[in-house]
Amino acid sequence: MVELISLCLCLCRAEDSAMENIVTEKKAEESHRQDSADLLVFILLLTLTILTIWLFKHRRCRFLHETGLAMIYGLLVGVVLRYAIHVPSDMNNVTLSCNVNASPATLLVNVSGKFYEYTLKGEISGSEINDIQDNEMLRKVTFDPEVFFNILLPPIIFHAGYSLKRRHFFRNLGSILAYAFVGTVVSCFIIGLFMYGCVLLMKQIGHLGGDFFFTDCLFFGAIVSATDPVTVLAIFNELQVDADLYALLFGESVLNDAVALVLSSSIVAYQPEGDNTHTFEAMAMLKSFGIFLGVFSGSFALGGATGVVTALISFNFTKLRELPLLETALFFLMSWSTFLLAEACGFTGVVAVLFCGMTQAHYTFNNLSPESQDRTKQLFELLNFLAENFIFSYMGLTLFTFHNHVFNPIFIVGAFLAVFLGRAANIYPLSFLLNLSRRNKITSNFQHMMMFAGLRGAMTFALSIRDTATYARQMMFSTTLLVVFFTVWICGGGTTQMLSCQKIRVGVDTDLENFQSCLMMDFLCVRLQIGPDGVERSSTKQESAWLFRIWYNFDHNYLKPILTHSGPPLTATLPACCGPLARCLTSPQAYENEGQLKDSDSDLILNDGDISLTYGDITVSTDATGAHTSGTPVGGVAVNSDEALDRELAFSDHELVIRGTRLVLPMDDSEHPLPLDSRRHWHKNETMS
Amino acid sequence: MVELISLCLCLCRAEDSAMENIVTEKKAEESHRQDSADLLVFILLLTLTILTIWLFKHRRCRFLHETGLAMIYGLLVGVVLRYAIHVPSDMNNVTLSCNVNASPATLLVNVSGKFYEYTLKGEISGSEINDIQDNEMLRKVTFDPEVFFNILLPPIIFHAGYSLKRRHFFRNLGSILAYAFVGTVVSCFIIGLFMYGCVLLMKQIGHLGGDFFFTDCLFFGAIVSATDPVTVLAIFNELQVDADLYALLFGESVLNDAVALVLSSSIVAYQPEGDNTHTFEAMAMLKSFGIFLGVFSGSFALGGATGVVTALISFNFTKLRELPLLETALFFLMSWSTFLLAEACGFTGVVAVLFCGMTQAHYTFNNLSPESQDRTKQLFELLNFLAENFIFSYMGLTLFTFHNHVFNPIFIVGAFLAVFLGRAANIYPLSFLLNLSRRNKITSNFQHMMMFAGLRGAMTFALSIRDTATYARQMMFSTTLLVVFFTVWICGGGTTQMLSCQKIRVGVDTDLENFQSCLMMDFLCVRLQIGPDGVERSSTKQESAWLFRIWYNFDHNYLKPILTHSGPPLTATLPACCGPLARCLTSPQAYENEGQLKDSDSDLILNDGDISLTYGDITVSTDATGAHTSGTPVGGVAVNSDEALDRELAFSDHELVIRGTRLVLPMDDSEHPLPLDSRRHWHKNETMS
Repeated sequence: MVELISLCLCLCRAEDSAMENIVTEKKAEESHRQDSADLLVFILLLTLTILTIWLFKHRRCRFLHETGLAMIYGLLVGVVLRYAIHVPSDMNNVTLSCNVNASPATLLVNVSGKFYEYTLKGEISGSEINDIQDNEMLRKVTFDPEVFFNILLPPIIFHAGYSLKRRHFFRNLGSILAYAFVGTVVSCFIIGLFMYGCVLLMKQIGHLGGDFFFTDCLFFGAIVSATDPVTVLAIFNELQVDADLYALLFGESVLNDAVALVLSSSIVAYQPEGDNTHTFEAMAMLKSFGIFLGVFSGSFALGGATGVVTALISFNFTKLRELPLLETALFFLMSWSTFLLAEACGFTGVVAVLFCGMTQAHYTFNNLSPESQDRTKQLFELLNFLAENFIFSYMGLTLFTFHNHVFNPIFIVGAFLAVFLGRAANIYPLSFLLNLSRRNKITSNFQHMMMFAGLRGAMTFALSIRDTATYARQMMFSTTLLVVFFTVWICGGGTTQMLSCQKIRVGVDTDLENFQSCLMMDFLCVRLQIGPDGVERSSTKQESAWLFRIWYNFDHNYLKPILTHSGPPLTATLPACCGPLARCLTSPQAYENEGQLKDSDSDLILNDGDISLTYGDITVSTDATGAHTSGTPVGGVAVNSDEALDRELAFSDHELVIRGTRLVLPMDDSEHPLPLDSRRHWHKNETMS
Repeated sequence: MVELISLCLCLCRAEDSAMENIVTEKKAEESHRQDSADLLVFILLLTLTILTIWLFKHRRCRFLHETGLAMIYGLLVGVVLRYAIHVPSDMNNVTLSCNVNASPATLLVNVSGKFYEYTLKGEISGSEINDIQDNEMLRKVTFDPEVFFNILLPPIIFHAGYSLKRRHFFRNLGSILAYAFVGTVVSCFIIGLFMYGCVLLMKQIGHLGGDFFFTDCLFFGAIVSATDPVTVLAIFNELQVDADLYALLFGESVLNDAVALVLSSSIVAYQPEGDNTHTFEAMAMLKSFGIFLGVFSGSFALGGATGVVTALISFNFTKLRELPLLETALFFLMSWSTFLLAEACGFTGVVAVLFCGMTQAHYTFNNLSPESQDRTKQLFELLNFLAENFIFSYMGLTLFTFHNHVFNPIFIVGAFLAVFLGRAANIYPLSFLLNLSRRNKITSNFQHMMMFAGLRGAMTFALSIRDTATYARQMMFSTTLLVVFFTVWICGGGTTQMLSCQKIRVGVDTDLENFQSCLMMDFLCVRLQIGPDGVERSSTKQESAWLFRIWYNFDHNYLKPILTHSGPPLTATLPACCGPLARCLTSPQAYENEGQLKDSDSDLILNDGDISLTYGDITVSTDATGAHTSGTPVGGVAVNSDEALDRELAFSDHELVIRGTRLVLPMDDSEHPLPLDSRRHWHKNETMS
């Protein structure tokens, strides 16, 4: 495919080559200065946002979150740039025409005997050409949309995965997956269909200024189905809202970003053969579906794999713990390489980074030194904070600086209705179905809250600005901006009111609450089990997710010991025939840990093995510094098979009766006295979850 | 200056516009994948470097520092890219020619009716055009040189300023400034003159393939005069080498980076009028000198100003301390905006960032919450580490991937000689002159060590790769690479040997040592002072730098109270007439601190006020956690005027005799027992300096 075409037309000799050189250099310098000044505007905008956020936090204002604030500042700067500043049009664009078939990535231009290299920036529509000549300033503050996908989104998504409250996430995994996958697809199609109705109406009354196909409607459905966790969850965190509601909302919004991203690219990839490219065709549809599955599972596998590799490295290079700087740098680089690797393989980097973050938090985090744990958390927290506020202020800015807005009243009203309907079609039917099998039901006030909390944010914006070439995409972009503004300001600002209106409890100390409720349940279980037949107990057991139990056991018995220094030694969990292999894979630390199986992560699951452990370790003492020492289990090594579990439970229950369980722990930092009627005091174990 | 030129030559109708669109998209996607893969190579290179560094640190290998290692890995990858991988030339470059006078920044190309936007990347020389067509792969891994100045150098330089050991730096300020300013200029001219001799010789024997002017030689002198602190100082840190030697080397190499950068741009700016642009002209020379002064002082002032603004913000928004994330983000953004502001104003961002870092460390750091202090230090440590290793591995890579190397044996040998001579002409004469006025002389073994430790690193490389358009610049670049390789591997690797060869003490606990020696000196001072006339004492006093004493007093009495929460309240230091102003500017904390004037920074200077304080605070107890409590000074508030000092010293000496100074402190972490013959035990005060 060598297309080396030389179009040497006229070679003008330069009269004064030196002079010209200086002029070119001056121009390059000026352009660099201008770039610096533009970036400075954004930095100062962020600085201003931070100072105002501080003021808000100080005054405990909850009606406007930092992201909403960043948008307002962005809007203001946008207005100033648009209307107040008029830069004289310093137009140096040259329009060239040539008879090549495609636009090359690199262009060499022979100007007066000197060769200059140009790189392709993108296609511009005819209308844009005038705009370009209109206001150079506005174009300058416009970023390449790919910046969002390659620089700003990855830290946000990684941070979401890394900071997932895994215990509650895994407890609600089934529901979260249902909302994220089924819910997002349902929402996408509902919105797509509704919008197609709107488009047909607009076509009828002649309000449509260009093409708008059904695939465009579906694409719109996909991009506005991505909900943003930022604003609502910040308030939830502050108010300490119920952990299950938090987990459901957070898990859903993190995963549906990934689903919406892959879904939208699958819709774009829908390319039926033949003349009319916008008809329905089963094969193309299947292909799109295949792409969705392939890209999603590929990104998932890749993200998980890199996480596992990092865990293995940090597991084997244990001495690295002495050098937190190297450890942190390694962690950062490996996480970044996940993104790049996924992009290089044609998968979706953002999705890979999400699963990488989750794997890192689950395995690698346990291998890091305490200092590196802090450092990595703080680093990604900072990156997330900066990227997020940058995106939201840029969002405000684009409302005025973007030149090809298409605001169509019918489409906008339709979009708001569709977004509402799509969210309702996601939450209510799915909640009903999920409640059929859930032990702790998703109550109707939780459902209303989830409905209300479906804000649209960074991902929706990034997806809609990615391609604004056609009329349909421009209309989508303008409408999306309004949807984001509305949801962030109105829904985000009304979260506190909505919470009190729905009578959802706030100020819940989740760790304590959980420990306590789980204990009560276990206690009940144990009571039931010592009945004559044990039938009740097993029925209780079957209510919990069997699929998840299998995974948890596998993870706890095999993956954790291989990838981290916690968990039981493999020699104890693998069958006897695999003895040599197990010995080879087990680290010396695992044997040391054998007595203290309750690693920071084991409270992820609060049934089965942990019950036995909780009852097995009769004396657990936690000192003030967080280092916890536990007595060896009375029943020996806990093997998580059901028979062992039964024996274990019976044994420990016996113990319970004989010795009278006394778990007295220092109560230095628990502010909520337990309303337990027993005389025991439980102390929450501060863990990263 | 509207130069809108439309050269519409031929508008070819696209046969299949949709098909073509897909092709373009595919191509863009492929290019993105390629970019990701290239970046991935670098990331993996860094990961490999980190793992090997760990191995080296673990085995205590000191003959090769991480930067040297990064270069070796870079070299290996360069060899592989150059010789092992042969990508079939997928050439899509199109050469266009047009009769415009200058190359525009943006180019619109009309390809088959569609407009594509191209941005200027830079000029390419004729020889490069063939290279471009040679190997796309090699071009892909080549970064825009401006990346170094805008992304990689700023964190390195900022970190250098931020981590300066200020106490020892300020104690040796005069010498450091002499080495950095006078020394660098001397070295630049010596090297320039020597190289001009080489060039003349080469011209005589016909070894020169292009133009090479005297300004080019001076430019070469400027860029290779920038010494790099990284490698040597890492070893110094590990071995705990004498603090004064450390301060001299570190201070010099940090400041001479800034001097060399501004100097080289001043040399480039030397543009005599008239026909021959390479003759000597006094006016142009003066202009260059003016540019040097203007840019340097401008950057200095700007960097300092931003630092002060950040200090003021963090001073006034004290409640920000509750939110370390916001505090850290603010700190990061303000430091970055210094760089952008300087660039936007036409100053040198890197230099501004250096002084900003120093100001931040001096003032803002004291206002930050302890958590933010850790966070900012760790953040910049990480950024510095990544940027540095990236630059050094890229250096290794370019030896093979850069296509226009000009290796000229005479020039190379000449350059090595010139570098040696230049360094010698910097160190030895200056040390001799400085020793005339210094109290603690720079001994000859220190001088040899400084001579040996003049490694060339990141700044030299970045300056030489910035412009490789002409023959002279290409030859400089190739030679510079070799100089960097040689100094980093040979001089860097031989540091330990050189230290033991020069019999320079290692394993010195600098804080302890200092405290002790200062104490001995003060003791002497006090003894002398109680002689009948006090003449000896005042002569001792005059030996210390008077200029610096003035600055220190001003800083301690006025700047520190205004910008930080430490230091004495302004009401105590300002004259009585300024009472209202002082009260308005003094924070409530300052009054609280009044009794404990010994802030983390006051041991910066170990004479005057501190002596009185040391003797005034008879009982200083430091507990193991680092929080130190001190008794109120016996002599009341210490005002740093000379009369008060005298009174104070006399008083405390009296106290000394009467009460018998007993300073018994816990000795938990000092491994070096004091060889003091008195019965006192001193405990070093761990401070960030």
